[in-house]
Amino acid sequence: MVSAAGRLLRRQGYAATGWRQVVREAEAPWGSQSHHFPRGKEQLAAEALARAGARYRDLLAGALDGVHPADMVVGWSELAAAQLSQSGWADGCPIATVTLEQAHESEVLAGACHAALGSWVDTIAAAIEARGMTADRSRSLAMLVVAGIEGALLLARAARDPEPLLRTGAELSSVLRSRVP
Amino acid sequence: MVSAAGRLLRRQGYAATGWRQVVREAEAPWGSQSHHFPRGKEQLAAEALARAGARYRDLLAGALDGVHPADMVVGWSELAAAQLSQSGWADGCPIATVTLEQAHESEVLAGACHAALGSWVDTIAAAIEARGMTADRSRSLAMLVVAGIEGALLLARAARDPEPLLRTGAELSSVLRSRVP
Repeated sequence: MVSAAGRLLRRQGYAATGWRQVVREAEAPWGSQSHHFPRGKEQLAAEALARAGARYRDLLAGALDGVHPADMVVGWSELAAAQLSQSGWADGCPIATVTLEQAHESEVLAGACHAALGSWVDTIAAAIEARGMTADRSRSLAMLVVAGIEGALLLARAARDPEPLLRTGAELSSVLRSRVP
Repeated sequence: MVSAAGRLLRRQGYAATGWRQVVREAEAPWGSQSHHFPRGKEQLAAEALARAGARYRDLLAGALDGVHPADMVVGWSELAAAQLSQSGWADGCPIATVTLEQAHESEVLAGACHAALGSWVDTIAAAIEARGMTADRSRSLAMLVVAGIEGALLLARAARDPEPLLRTGAELSSVLRSRVP
């Protein structure tokens, strides 16, 4: 049910994702959702966001292992562009849609989104800091990278074209190349 | 009704915004919506997105008039941070939420979101090109700026903290300062 919810939240957000659809996609018996998630749809969504956030963080950490951040960000933008176009412009960031819809309304969901996005910033900042930059500069550059990729995913979805991701990835890479040892 | 729809779409997205709420917020008589928007909620939303996109594009064009893009982007990030925190982390980008929710499902809404976001990229690219850079480089830098601010708005909403906007704005400014004459 957590995987099914994760897929649906990524594609269509929280408001459009109902229990019925999650239970059907998960091929779970009706009624089992209230057993597993007594605090309701918000609890299920928070778990799905946490799982998607951790999976992505591990992916980033792996991609940064022994690789300059300038090269990682090109790979990230190309992977995101491929996933997005192959899914008919549906599969963007697993966290972003719920963030924009719900972060001001639900503290639980805002917290889950922030934990996920923050763990990506922290992972990239640590890799930059390990190359000899200050913690403060590393944090700013890592935020620029995550913000740039998130925003480019948004532009690419609206345009139904990978161009914004590929251009932004190349620009971010050039920034990191010129600033990070 | 278009203004009311614009406010609601910005805060909560398309799926959560119903006719009833729009008509109530607009203080319009029930029934008038089908007279003004015979093609339904999608038509109303597309008009609200077009209006919000044009207003923002004019704001950007004004902010770039005689101002270096590196200075404009700092002002943009500070204004966005102020609007976001003053609205209880509700008022981010008027286009982004609908883009993430609906761009893969509705061609009409994807088109409206793309037209709005694309007009901001074009406005910034024109200002960079006017300073002597090639059209191609100007387009890439303008996409980086719009993507960076959009992504930073997302991070700031999740964190309920203006830090990502202020840091990303400063980084984007430094990139533009070092690259744009």
